[in-house]
Amino acid sequence: MKLLEERILKDGKLFPGSILKVDSFLNHQMDVALLNEIGKEFKRLYADCGVNKILTIEASGIGIACITAQFFDCPVLFAKKTKTKNIASSVYKTSVKSYTHGTTYDVIVSKEFLHKGDRVLIIDDFLAEGNALLGLIDLCRQAGAEVAGCGIAIEKAFQPGSARIREKGVRVESLAVIDSMDGGVIKFR
Amino acid sequence: MKLLEERILKDGKLFPGSILKVDSFLNHQMDVALLNEIGKEFKRLYADCGVNKILTIEASGIGIACITAQFFDCPVLFAKKTKTKNIASSVYKTSVKSYTHGTTYDVIVSKEFLHKGDRVLIIDDFLAEGNALLGLIDLCRQAGAEVAGCGIAIEKAFQPGSARIREKGVRVESLAVIDSMDGGVIKFR
Repeated sequence: MKLLEERILKDGKLFPGSILKVDSFLNHQMDVALLNEIGKEFKRLYADCGVNKILTIEASGIGIACITAQFFDCPVLFAKKTKTKNIASSVYKTSVKSYTHGTTYDVIVSKEFLHKGDRVLIIDDFLAEGNALLGLIDLCRQAGAEVAGCGIAIEKAFQPGSARIREKGVRVESLAVIDSMDGGVIKFR
Repeated sequence: MKLLEERILKDGKLFPGSILKVDSFLNHQMDVALLNEIGKEFKRLYADCGVNKILTIEASGIGIACITAQFFDCPVLFAKKTKTKNIASSVYKTSVKSYTHGTTYDVIVSKEFLHKGDRVLIIDDFLAEGNALLGLIDLCRQAGAEVAGCGIAIEKAFQPGSARIREKGVRVESLAVIDSMDGGVIKFR
């Protein structure tokens, strides 16, 4: 998606360790007009997939997911990060390893809102190691819901996430695919 | 707002301790069509206030804020909850006491995205004790930004939050104002 790639080049900031900060327009401050174009593109890609629910994870996926849901006329469900040890039996739970923070946290969704028969589009801002997405896919599997695919704003293709998701037979569509950031230069696919 | 009140009566769940759960349509699963009506109403209420930025707090405010921002043609900024002790000098920080969890957490926004001259509409799903909103107002004050007002989906008027906000001279508009929930019966203003 040209518009997103241009915006990354214009306003993205690179830091050592393959860190790309896009917090001026995507995941701290959010340019809602850009999110709208992103949502429109996800709709084009997944138009005929019978999507009836969008699933994301707090916090930075929620904005993209809500704007995207307008194009699918469906509700958004966001998985919650939790540190509570005693999780109620009324939730599906999975563990997600944070590559950035070197920790593992639990992620839950209420069983009330994810069911067998649901056709779920999973939305997130970034795909790198893929741990958050694998967790969301696992929540869908526990619920018996089908994953129509994943819609990602920015994929770091030099990290193993997208291969790990596709190995599970899950479709991944990323709107800006970064092949390398070596020497502070972003190369898109 | 009739539509929201009706939805609370239909799908809200009451629990002991004045807890109202609306996680089937507002803050876990989100009905984006309803959020759209909420956003439209905030626009009607704050149409002539020169709002150029919407500020909210992760996680459950983000969806409402993003949908609302479409009516104001402005970016959304969400304050992040953090446990990091060494906060960078590049952020504004404030402390928020959680009434629900009995803890205090720090909330930050990057100095890059909140400035003197900004006219900020603060959006959140709930107003009860008002601690989160007071924190967001404090972040605006630190930045020298003006608060045009607060837009709240559900206010528990039997808790002191809205009075505490108004004492600071800040306008509060809540779309569903609950005067009491005694005996499991929700009474709207």
